[in-house]
Amino acid sequence: MRIGMIGLGGMGGNLARRLMRGGHQVVVWVHGSEATEAVAPDGAIAVASIEDMAGQLREHRTFWVMLPACEPTEQTVTMLGVTAAAGDIIIDGGNTFYKDDIRRSKMLATRGIDYVDVGTSGGVRGLERGYCMMIGGHLETVRRLNPIFETLALGFGDIARTVGRDRPDDRAERGYVHVGPAGAGHFVKMFHNGIEYGLMQAYAEGFDILKGRSSDKLADVWRRGSVISSWLLDLSAAALARDHTLEHYSGHVADSGEGRWTADAAMEEAVPACVLSAALSARYRSRVETTFGDKLLSAMRFGFGGHVEIPQ
Amino acid sequence: MRIGMIGLGGMGGNLARRLMRGGHQVVVWVHGSEATEAVAPDGAIAVASIEDMAGQLREHRTFWVMLPACEPTEQTVTMLGVTAAAGDIIIDGGNTFYKDDIRRSKMLATRGIDYVDVGTSGGVRGLERGYCMMIGGHLETVRRLNPIFETLALGFGDIARTVGRDRPDDRAERGYVHVGPAGAGHFVKMFHNGIEYGLMQAYAEGFDILKGRSSDKLADVWRRGSVISSWLLDLSAAALARDHTLEHYSGHVADSGEGRWTADAAMEEAVPACVLSAALSARYRSRVETTFGDKLLSAMRFGFGGHVEIPQ
Amino acid sequence: MRIGMIGLGGMGGNLARRLMRGGHQVVVWVHGSEATEAVAPDGAIAVASIEDMAGQLREHRTFWVMLPACEPTEQTVTMLGVTAAAGDIIIDGGNTFYKDDIRRSKMLATRGIDYVDVGTSGGVRGLERGYCMMIGGHLETVRRLNPIFETLALGFGDIARTVGRDRPDDRAERGYVHVGPAGAGHFVKMFHNGIEYGLMQAYAEGFDILKGRSSDKLADVWRRGSVISSWLLDLSAAALARDHTLEHYSGHVADSGEGRWTADAAMEEAVPACVLSAALSARYRSRVETTFGDKLLSAMRFGFGGHVEIPQ
Amino acid sequence: MRIGMIGLGGMGGNLARRLMRGGHQVVVWVHGSEATEAVAPDGAIAVASIEDMAGQLREHRTFWVMLPACEPTEQTVTMLGVTAAAGDIIIDGGNTFYKDDIRRSKMLATRGIDYVDVGTSGGVRGLERGYCMMIGGHLETVRRLNPIFETLALGFGDIARTVGRDRPDDRAERGYVHVGPAGAGHFVKMFHNGIEYGLMQAYAEGFDILKGRSSDKLADVWRRGSVISSWLLDLSAAALARDHTLEHYSGHVADSGEGRWTADAAMEEAVPACVLSAALSARYRSRVETTFGDKLLSAMRFGFGGHVEIPQ
Repeated sequence: MRIGMIGLGGMGGNLARRLMRGGHQVVVWVHGSEATEAVAPDGAIAVASIEDMAGQLREHRTFWVMLPACEPTEQTVTMLGVTAAAGDIIIDGGNTFYKDDIRRSKMLATRGIDYVDVGTSGGVRGLERGYCMMIGGHLETVRRLNPIFETLALGFGDIARTVGRDRPDDRAERGYVHVGPAGAGHFVKMFHNGIEYGLMQAYAEGFDILKGRSSDKLADVWRRGSVISSWLLDLSAAALARDHTLEHYSGHVADSGEGRWTADAAMEEAVPACVLSAALSARYRSRVETTFGDKLLSAMRFGFGGHVEIPQ
Repeated sequence: MRIGMIGLGGMGGNLARRLMRGGHQVVVWVHGSEATEAVAPDGAIAVASIEDMAGQLREHRTFWVMLPACEPTEQTVTMLGVTAAAGDIIIDGGNTFYKDDIRRSKMLATRGIDYVDVGTSGGVRGLERGYCMMIGGHLETVRRLNPIFETLALGFGDIARTVGRDRPDDRAERGYVHVGPAGAGHFVKMFHNGIEYGLMQAYAEGFDILKGRSSDKLADVWRRGSVISSWLLDLSAAALARDHTLEHYSGHVADSGEGRWTADAAMEEAVPACVLSAALSARYRSRVETTFGDKLLSAMRFGFGGHVEIPQ
Repeated sequence: MRIGMIGLGGMGGNLARRLMRGGHQVVVWVHGSEATEAVAPDGAIAVASIEDMAGQLREHRTFWVMLPACEPTEQTVTMLGVTAAAGDIIIDGGNTFYKDDIRRSKMLATRGIDYVDVGTSGGVRGLERGYCMMIGGHLETVRRLNPIFETLALGFGDIARTVGRDRPDDRAERGYVHVGPAGAGHFVKMFHNGIEYGLMQAYAEGFDILKGRSSDKLADVWRRGSVISSWLLDLSAAALARDHTLEHYSGHVADSGEGRWTADAAMEEAVPACVLSAALSARYRSRVETTFGDKLLSAMRFGFGGHVEIPQ
Repeated sequence: MRIGMIGLGGMGGNLARRLMRGGHQVVVWVHGSEATEAVAPDGAIAVASIEDMAGQLREHRTFWVMLPACEPTEQTVTMLGVTAAAGDIIIDGGNTFYKDDIRRSKMLATRGIDYVDVGTSGGVRGLERGYCMMIGGHLETVRRLNPIFETLALGFGDIARTVGRDRPDDRAERGYVHVGPAGAGHFVKMFHNGIEYGLMQAYAEGFDILKGRSSDKLADVWRRGSVISSWLLDLSAAALARDHTLEHYSGHVADSGEGRWTADAAMEEAVPACVLSAALSARYRSRVETTFGDKLLSAMRFGFGGHVEIPQ
């Protein structure tokens, strides 16, 4: 297939490369015409504007938007809503809030444009490893895009089939899944990231207690046959192998919207989610030196016990 | 009564003062004979050694040990075990681990010495406000000490009687309670402190979110008629009235043994205690700038997303 | 003053009674004319409709809406928006989300109607004890309502003045505070309730571990002089005095919006709030017998360890 | 090599089988002579007593104890301490508390017997997949046992080498690691399990919110290329593929000592560990229908708000 890719950051560039390796043709664009030439992956057709991209694509054109959520994505989808024609497809592969997908999908439908949201997991390693995709949109549209997803996905790989699994639609086992109408892909991606926060914090706490005690050897050995083997552990082992002190990392840990949205979803459904909430709190805490709350604790302790906790 | 008080820190000195105000005679001693003269409250009989103290007390002598838990208390109780005679009473009013009380009580019983543990709450304000005491020991011994506890306790004060309460033994409503044999007092004090940690953290988090938004006025108003009025809130209001920025407090919050022991007790009994554990974790976190765990989170994020979280 | 009170549930009825005791005249109404007659407190003027109420009030009429948040309150405020005239005041004393206050305030301002939101704490005991009120609205309007708030508030009572406090505006110390424009009262009430959840859970966990071990005596004694004395502890002591097994309570604990909103506010401001989140999760958990998550844990344990956790 | 295996439960039996597949000879024994014959794996030499086992082994005999921690293991090690001779090796492959290992090691050393502790991860699937082993003991002894560990471990398998890793001792990458003197193996295994609890709870919470929404397809797809792929997710996917309602699992989740010990270790080192603590609390909560704490919450809510939360 021929597809347009808008945005060539860590994710977009690699998606384009993997698509071309799979035999697809990719037209690329980033804001600023010179920029596109400079960063376009080898073999991609660099264009100077969204209109140029539209001209380079065939009938039933497909635009994949791979940009930071909120403003950049919103603006680009809005521009595409003007440029695209009935029968075209706009894919948002970023980390959009699912209620925004639903809104956009309805708006674009009035012009006959199809909207597909793809929660894309796999990070910068996806180029070699393949991507995991959670997809929302119309049945027919998603089916039409099958060759794209097939190429981007990890496929069966060398991962054992799920025991007990044997059904006609094996797409989930090949790394992508169609979970419902527009918004459903990002809805599900949200939970993926919520779980991710909890997993990461579990490793962080375990290694924090162990700190200085063979962390790198342990990360290595746990990768092989232990109950806690995982891809996040693979990444941890690699980082610890490079420098077991991790001193080049600030430890000021950012969070994106998905963690918060998952916590919100848990509250909306009244589901207890202590671990996910605690993981989020730990990130907030990592970014400040001292909280006003901590000072209040010091103040109360001074009030009842005369305990002095003042800066040296 | 006449009583010996060993240790004249924030707690011991005030206990002695309140006892004397109540008409008791207090013999005091701290390590180092000159020291005792210098810090003894007016009206107290300062002595130069434990043996002197023993000489100054009457038959059935009562020694109240008010020292930091662990080493200082352990050593003093051991010395008293040698100096004291059958029929004497040793009171540990500090924050000893209850299993140490049980051990000491058995050991001292072989020499006919009675051991009483008193979990003492009320802090430096107890002199005026009165203390809340949780007591473990023999029924008869605790009864014999009644005049002491009566004087130290807050009494009914102006606090409304517990609705529905009407029983012969009203000591709990007068501020002290005999909860069982040796160790029981500190066992129960442990939970008091565990709850205290949770309460403090609840206020800390609430004010942390509010920070800069009328914290001092809110602390004031919540003291009057709100569901969250409490003594800890009174102390918070006082601190915020003095300086609503709390900038003179370090926010590096210490914890004593009781919080950990409560968490241990919860685990021993398989009782969920998320809030108490979280309050404890928050204190640990308050004392370090960055954790190894936070750095590992940064490292994983770099690994999968190329997110750069390095020190500036 | 003369004031209209709409809603006569646990809160509204007592507010009306306390106002009348303070010398105010109260016109009351609940949906359904017969209903109002039946439940109106002695001395109140019962009316059959909002229009009747408007007729019974003087110029610059004041309507206090004391209804469950969301639908009932929203509908009533909407009706009042039609009935009221320029210069009238509508007070929402319930638990409305602060963004709804802001919206309503703007809408009503276009008709010259003043909107005041009052976060009201104190519960069913407020009749005797007095209420704690956090108020949002125009400076002049709030000042005009001063006699009302003065009567409803607890006042200085027998509560010690905040140490170090000495300022001209002492309303906070008399139990009510004007914190800002419309919405500010409920904004601040939200944090009050968030803290409340954390405090309650701290007591719940402590007593859970202690269960069966003198809970009622301990609640009594901790009320007097201990660091953890509070009004919530007073209530706990009263409940335990009536029945120390608490067997007549279901333990299925509801939560209202404020807890969730506080958690949301914490996330919006990236403030760690582990205790408040954990308290919320504990309530969700209390209302279900087994979670899907728990079953998944069983399933994983069976998967890796052959541990059998199946219903008997 | 020839080795004695004591205990033939889910773990011991499979360890014996994997050893024999690797060309080792295994002498097996369980309490009760008939029992051993009945459950001994094909090819193993079943004996009727520890003394018989000792007789069947060669000089420098090696006994692997694979029994539930605490009593069964303690008793067996004690018996072996009598039967074994200088130069023999006793391996404890179970989940013993590391301080017990240190004590035993010292005691056995006085008789010239070597003690090795092996934290063994991999569960019932280890027979096919290989085990992950964390080993404590003398350098020379552990080296002597190399052929055993080599056979039991997963080896490099098809798992990518840790990026950046290149060192002479590559045992960690082959699935086993020597981390220090006696006790070190179980010390490290403890953290492994602590992390395991946190990971499991993260998945549990995520799937709990999603419940009923394509859980089985999502588990499948996340196994392939997503950031949260792991062995625990493989197991979850298998369980959900068999029955996506999981209705045959009780959801009453047991916990073994390691989780608690990890929480203790975190407290000993003052390391924040909110997620690990919360995971533990969730398990405790899963095993009771209603807690006393929940009832107290209901009671307080009735106290201040008249909220009725009583059983129907």
